[in-house]
Amino acid sequence: MNVGKIIPVIMSGGAGSRLWPASRQAMPKQLLPLVTEQTMVQETAERLSGDLFHPSVFICNAAHAAPIREQMKDMDMPVGAIIVEPMGRNTAPCAVVAALHAKQSDPDALILLAPADHHVTKPEAFRRSVAAAIPAAQKGCLVTFGIEPNGPETGYGYIQQGEAIAPGAFEVEAFKEKPDRETAQAYLDEGGYFWNAGIFLFSPEALLSEMNKFHPEIVEKASQAYKTATLKSGQIDLDEASFAACPSESIDYAVMEPTENAAVVPANIGWNDIGSFTSLHGLKKGDAGNAVKGDVIAYNTQNSLIETDGPLVTTVGLDGLAVIVKDGSILVAKLDAAQDVKKIVETLKAKERFDKL
Amino acid sequence: MNVGKIIPVIMSGGAGSRLWPASRQAMPKQLLPLVTEQTMVQETAERLSGDLFHPSVFICNAAHAAPIREQMKDMDMPVGAIIVEPMGRNTAPCAVVAALHAKQSDPDALILLAPADHHVTKPEAFRRSVAAAIPAAQKGCLVTFGIEPNGPETGYGYIQQGEAIAPGAFEVEAFKEKPDRETAQAYLDEGGYFWNAGIFLFSPEALLSEMNKFHPEIVEKASQAYKTATLKSGQIDLDEASFAACPSESIDYAVMEPTENAAVVPANIGWNDIGSFTSLHGLKKGDAGNAVKGDVIAYNTQNSLIETDGPLVTTVGLDGLAVIVKDGSILVAKLDAAQDVKKIVETLKAKERFDKL
Repeated sequence: MNVGKIIPVIMSGGAGSRLWPASRQAMPKQLLPLVTEQTMVQETAERLSGDLFHPSVFICNAAHAAPIREQMKDMDMPVGAIIVEPMGRNTAPCAVVAALHAKQSDPDALILLAPADHHVTKPEAFRRSVAAAIPAAQKGCLVTFGIEPNGPETGYGYIQQGEAIAPGAFEVEAFKEKPDRETAQAYLDEGGYFWNAGIFLFSPEALLSEMNKFHPEIVEKASQAYKTATLKSGQIDLDEASFAACPSESIDYAVMEPTENAAVVPANIGWNDIGSFTSLHGLKKGDAGNAVKGDVIAYNTQNSLIETDGPLVTTVGLDGLAVIVKDGSILVAKLDAAQDVKKIVETLKAKERFDKL
Repeated sequence: MNVGKIIPVIMSGGAGSRLWPASRQAMPKQLLPLVTEQTMVQETAERLSGDLFHPSVFICNAAHAAPIREQMKDMDMPVGAIIVEPMGRNTAPCAVVAALHAKQSDPDALILLAPADHHVTKPEAFRRSVAAAIPAAQKGCLVTFGIEPNGPETGYGYIQQGEAIAPGAFEVEAFKEKPDRETAQAYLDEGGYFWNAGIFLFSPEALLSEMNKFHPEIVEKASQAYKTATLKSGQIDLDEASFAACPSESIDYAVMEPTENAAVVPANIGWNDIGSFTSLHGLKKGDAGNAVKGDVIAYNTQNSLIETDGPLVTTVGLDGLAVIVKDGSILVAKLDAAQDVKKIVETLKAKERFDKL
């Protein structure tokens, strides 16, 4: 089997509503320099570049195609293609479209399907994990990367590893739903459990074959949307009617869980999905446990994340808070309740305050 | 002795730096509608109006003369005079200037000397206390109003009452410095102790006589500053050189403590000096212990003071915080550390960020 390079397919459809008001509908978290000077999609594209890889393909909504193209241009990064979803249909249709596109642009290529909005502190280690996953993917496995847990997190699904099938790659014994804290701790104590990061390596044929087995209607509608897409200036607009008719499903539920061919490659890569201000704070905190950006005067303040895009922010006596000022909106949240920031976004939607979303 | 009405002399020299960024140098707390729809100086002037009183005299710094005049005009309140201090010299020189001015405008009047930035929920009760204090003031006493404590506050000086000298008026047994909590609790348990609110009733002669006895140099310099003041359009600008040469001293230290003629009239008037956001919160809190003003979305938030003059403020999971947004500056402070807001103001001064002060 003659295998070409890997085509990175970067899924950039998220809204990042738990990072409001930093993350906005027009400029969601993957398009922002949340952790470093680079935006997250820039970090992701750079992480998936080098000898192993073709130029990245992006799957995003219409509003984000131009900023992605601009951000790639700013870092002199070639763009494989930009595929525009008329609406969100979760990751399984994405994977089908990615497979169809890859088959057409390099029939020998594997696909590395990855979200645009994850931070990885060890990109070299990540590329080594990808390289380690190639043999299994070549054998027709759908490979997922398992993140070594650094605590009993209840916010992620877990993957239990099975028998070794290649150096560094294992069968998947079981996928586990987000556990409660006790169960998560048991996974940690037992060992052999990994966080499911939603990053996959597979061949187009393997993916399409398994999708056809379990969800032929997704393959049918997504294929139709891709085959009747509108092409203009390197942008592929999926057909709206067909894609709207496509069931919305995650790749995990659609194929990874039912397939016999799942494999896991454990990856110790400094992974963080920046799922909330709590994760952002964890990544960025420095002196006194604070992470501060912009015009800030903090007095007797610790373990806090304070960011402002202009207005002076002053704090007195804070511990464990997020204070985020962006585009004339202000959020003050307890860091350990930062998941609930999405409640604010829901309220803004209910009040039809679209200028604030 | 033929006694005329009372001349209210409202001292409006404070900076309110513990209420930054609501209170600013150009528009300090007494000029703001902090508690009600009226500004605090408006509330104070209204409280000191009616049959007992002449129009109010204001002592303030140059920048605040125009806003005070405007605020009085807005409520159709006549202005007795506006006396401008070239610099702050604390309250004893104020009292001397007030006495000289009163002697000249109504030789029979008593003076009610009061800060501009206190809130009183029972103004009728306050006026009854003032009326009760008149006989003692007529007899030459320097009368201070003692606020009945509602807790072991450590932020105020205390007045211990002595023998009755008139209905509702007592000798002052002792002035007590700000106590520690244990001592404050002992005062409460023992009874007969009152908070020193810095509100006084006296005749000009009595004040000048006692000031002359203990601090003749204050009388000399303050008199000089008043007698060589510049008069223009109803505004009295005290002479800068003389006032600069006047010792800075509080009326408490200068005469109330050393004099034999101090008296106290206990006053149960719903007094609050709005000394910090904690006091403001205590006055305004409603549902869930929150006090909210402006464009605010509060989720799972309690016991907090949240005010914004424009930008949307959203909160998640807060308890016991102040979030204040004013003129492009933001403060987030733990309410029980709100005294330390002055540290922010000190930092802004040290950094010469005068636009923020």
